[in-house]
Formats: sequence, structure tokens, C-alpha cells
Amino acid sequence: MTRLIECVPNFSEGRRPEVIRAIAQAIIGVKSAEVLDIHMDIDHNRSVITFVCEPEFAVEAGFSAIQKAAELIDMTTHKGVHPRIGACDVFPFVPLDDVTMDEAVKLANRLGQKVGKELQIPIYLYEFAAKTPERQDLANIRRGQYEGLCQSISYDTSKVPDYGPTKINLKSGATAIGARGPLIAFNVFLATQEKSIGTKIANAISESKGGFKFVKSLAFEIRSKNQIQVSMNLTNYQKTPISRVFETIKSETERYGVKIVSSEIVGLIPFDAVADVVNFYLRVEGFSKEKVLEEKLKQITAKSNSQSINKF
Amino acid sequence: MTRLIECVPNFSEGRRPEVIRAIAQAIIGVKSAEVLDIHMDIDHNRSVITFVCEPEFAVEAGFSAIQKAAELIDMTTHKGVHPRIGACDVFPFVPLDDVTMDEAVKLANRLGQKVGKELQIPIYLYEFAAKTPERQDLANIRRGQYEGLCQSISYDTSKVPDYGPTKINLKSGATAIGARGPLIAFNVFLATQEKSIGTKIANAISESKGGFKFVKSLAFEIRSKNQIQVSMNLTNYQKTPISRVFETIKSETERYGVKIVSSEIVGLIPFDAVADVVNFYLRVEGFSKEKVLEEKLKQITAKSNSQSINKF
Repeated sequence: MTRLIECVPNFSEGRRPEVIRAIAQAIIGVKSAEVLDIHMDIDHNRSVITFVCEPEFAVEAGFSAIQKAAELIDMTTHKGVHPRIGACDVFPFVPLDDVTMDEAVKLANRLGQKVGKELQIPIYLYEFAAKTPERQDLANIRRGQYEGLCQSISYDTSKVPDYGPTKINLKSGATAIGARGPLIAFNVFLATQEKSIGTKIANAISESKGGFKFVKSLAFEIRSKNQIQVSMNLTNYQKTPISRVFETIKSETERYGVKIVSSEIVGLIPFDAVADVVNFYLRVEGFSKEKVLEEKLKQITAKSNSQSINKF
Repeated sequence: MTRLIECVPNFSEGRRPEVIRAIAQAIIGVKSAEVLDIHMDIDHNRSVITFVCEPEFAVEAGFSAIQKAAELIDMTTHKGVHPRIGACDVFPFVPLDDVTMDEAVKLANRLGQKVGKELQIPIYLYEFAAKTPERQDLANIRRGQYEGLCQSISYDTSKVPDYGPTKINLKSGATAIGARGPLIAFNVFLATQEKSIGTKIANAISESKGGFKFVKSLAFEIRSKNQIQVSMNLTNYQKTPISRVFETIKSETERYGVKIVSSEIVGLIPFDAVADVVNFYLRVEGFSKEKVLEEKLKQITAKSNSQSINKF
């Protein structure tokens, strides 16, 4: 089996598909790198590329992506509702299967060092890769955003980057590079234009405001839909499942007479999180991928007859 | 790619695992046959084995299963809440991928002929394999069950089998062999012991009683749980999705002050049916297996880099 690390970089460009396509091309130009999903958002003016790669090629793939973003995205003119500090705003390494978090942290450091030096972009290491407790939380790194950091990096000692120059790169901004576990990026759209309602709901579910332990949430105005979006990261979907968060949003919105219009999953989600939705809403006892026809058909190629019987 | 046909035989034994294990062993003793799922039910006293097989070996695998069931199951002493006519009660062929329904019908005929002749078991062909409109519906074939058929087969001209003797096989009963599309077997458990409530709810969703076009449903007493089960076959989950049926059951049960305790999926379900649950309950726009991490990881082995980009 090939060992793989997942990378989920976010770029400050959500309106020009040709830019995101060029970055994806730069990624898959590197040996073993494969793009799994591309999510562009017009209102956030931001895109998420999900790719996997063998660990030994991950720094090269990451560097190619960040280099291409630095070439094609100009932060001096970027506008969008989502907080961001740079052209490649955030670059997390997510270990899969046999890869350890320690290895992901090492990759984050190697990539940070290379980007800092060769592209002259300030790099902040976050979450498992953070070198101080404060930088474990990406929100702290991103506070003040690109515009704030342009100023504060020169005088605020808490803004000294882990790699690269202590001076903003005006065109490319700065980049947060980290190592983290899998998360689900889940957005819910509300039939209202009052952002204050969205913020109350985001606060109701966010750990930092007294909500669920493994939820980070912000509300954004989505002008293209005339709706408010409650945008979430679910950082431990086993302990804080999608269904529980969704039902809480539903009950909170009812209080304001606001309806949930739709939702979206940004990037990919693990099958276990899908199974949770089935188990919760249909009250199934122990639904899992073992109950899915296509999954079982795939398994039989890898399994001998005697094993399938022994499992019974 | 190997061509596969799915078989989902139901056996009138749900209490002795060694019997079902022996039948499964008989199936996988045949070349290319692989058991995907085994579901035993104590109250139904019935088991469902889901297996796949290359079409050219499917008659042999089916025959082995029915022969073993005829050897180990005695209908003269069988009791259980689910309607049944024989030791192997029903044997459907379900074409997958490249296999046609016409081929499934031919297999049903070949298996029926062989079982009728060599095991002296009366065979009724149903659904796409039926030779008369009346026998398209399995419920018509099973009406009166084993006990009724023991008598009626000798005088009721509508009970003349398609293959095998016009005389019940006392130990093995009769077997319905058919060809059909995929279906979802889905059971909901109610916190009541009043079967009449279960029957009212089963009727509310059953096509034959004015319910949904693609639902067949019966209510059963489940003594092992002191509950009533609404047992369903969803024969077209695209047009009548699980979520709609479940929500209808929920609203009908509320009327009687009865709660849904749990549900179960018998056998396997296609991923599309799972995606429907996510789309409906979380109001996702277009959730599909393309959003599932494990699925995408499997796809990359079969797909070149350039293809994944071109899809974007």
C-alpha cells in the first residue's frame, strides 16, 4: 500500500477558475500528487483544493501550489468575506492511514522553511505544527487579516513569523502552514439577510462562545444568494457529529423565525460521518459502510471467501 | 471487469446460525461466488444471504444453496412471523452493471428447471421472470403460505408450478425464483405491542393500500423486543426514497402516540440511497459519493491525473 498524506490548501481566489486550474495543474505536475476535489466559492472569493501525495513528494507539491498562487493572485486587490492573510492562505497537512502526525509536523516545517526562504513569504505554523500555544489556533494567527498584518508584522512581537521575512510580502501576503487531523467543513445557508442572526447561531455552536467542543463557526453574508451562511469546521465529527450540530442550528433558527435553505460540504468527508447521518435520522442500529453494496463489491476482490464467512 | 449477478435468497431459518453458515459455505464452494452479507432474524425465523457470482456459475451456486437448505431445514416444524412457502422461500436474481434483466430471467428459468427436476421442489417464477401477470407479484404466490399451499397445490389451477412437481415437497415446501431490480429491505420498530397500529402504518405507505407507488409493507409482532415492526421493501428508492417513507411513518406514528425506536437495513443498500438521506436531512445540494474521502482515494488508482483535472 502506498502511504499518503492529504493536503487541503485554501487559496484567496474563488472567481477565476483558470487560476485555480493552474494551481491544480502545478500540484499534479509533481510525482504521486492527485487532486481529489476542488471547491470554489464566489462570495468567500476563496477556493479549497484537496489533494493527496506520497509524503516524500508533499513538500514539492505544496511548494508548487504556493508558488503558482503567489504568481497568479494579488492580495493588494483581493476582497472576500472569509478571513485570510495570503494568496495561499492556509496549508494543512492531514496524515492518512500509516502516516503519523509527527511526520505531518515535519513536512509543515520543511515546506514552511522552503516557502519562507525561496518565495520570501512569512510563514506561521499552526495547530500540531505550532511552536507556541497561541498559534495552535488558526484564528489567532489570522486575527487582523492581511490588511492588519501588513502593519502589525513590523512592530507586534506576537506576529514574528516562524519562517521567512518579518515583513509582509505585499502581493502574496503570509501563509499559515499546519498539521491537523481530519475535519469537516460544513456550511448552512439561512433564508435571511440579517448577519446578526447568523452570528448568534454561529456563536451558539462554537466552542469559543460556549457551544460544542469541536465546532468552530463564523457567519458570512452571501450576496450571490441574498442569504446568510453559518460556516463551520467540525474538528472531531465522532464526538460532535454533523447531525447534532445541524439539529442545534435548526432549533436556534426557529427561534428567529428563519429557515435553513440548504447546506454544503466543502471538500470531502469521511464515510463514518455519512454513516452518522443515516444512524441519527433513520435511527438505524449500527449502519456502516459494511451495509453499502458498492463497498462490499470492492471488498470481495481483496478478501478470500473463507474470510467473509468467518466474519459472520 | 468481471460481470456479476447478485442473488438475495431468503431461507426459512433464523435461529440456528450453523444452518445458515452451512448454506453460505455451499454457496462459496462454487467458483466466483462471494457472500456479501448475511442477515438472520429470530422473530421472522428467516435469513437473507446476499451473494454475487459470475452469471455462468449462478445456477450452480443457487442450486447448491437450495439443496443445502432442503437438507437442513424442515418446513413441517417451521414457525415464524414472516410469510413463507419453503425452506428456500424466495430466490431473486438481481442484475448488476453489465448483466441484463433478460439474462437474469434466463438464469431464473434454468435454476427453476434444475431445482424442480433434481430436488422435486415446486417452483414459481415471479416478477420479471413471471410467466403470468398474476405471478409478477410475489405476494400472490405466497398467499396462503406453506400450510395453504400443501392443500391448494393439488386442486387450485392458479397454484400449478412453473417447474417441478404439482405436489408440495413436505420437508422443503416450494420456492419462488425470480428476476428483479435492486430493492431496499428496510424495517422500522415501533414502541407498541399493538399490531393493529403497525398494520395501519404499513397500509399508509403500501402501494396496494393507497400508499407510495414503490413500497410494499407488512407489520409483524416482534416478541423478542416487545415491539411492532413495519417491514418494507422499497422497490425504487430513486422515486420513493427512504427519507420520504421514514418521515411518513414518523408522522403517522405520532397520530397514535407511538414512538419509532429504531430501524434496520436488511442486506445491503446502494450508495445513492445513502446519499439521499444526507441530501434530505441536511438539505445538502447534490451530495454524492464524489464527496466521500474513501471513495475518491479509491478512484485515484483508476484515474490519471489529467482526467481528474478535466472533470473540474
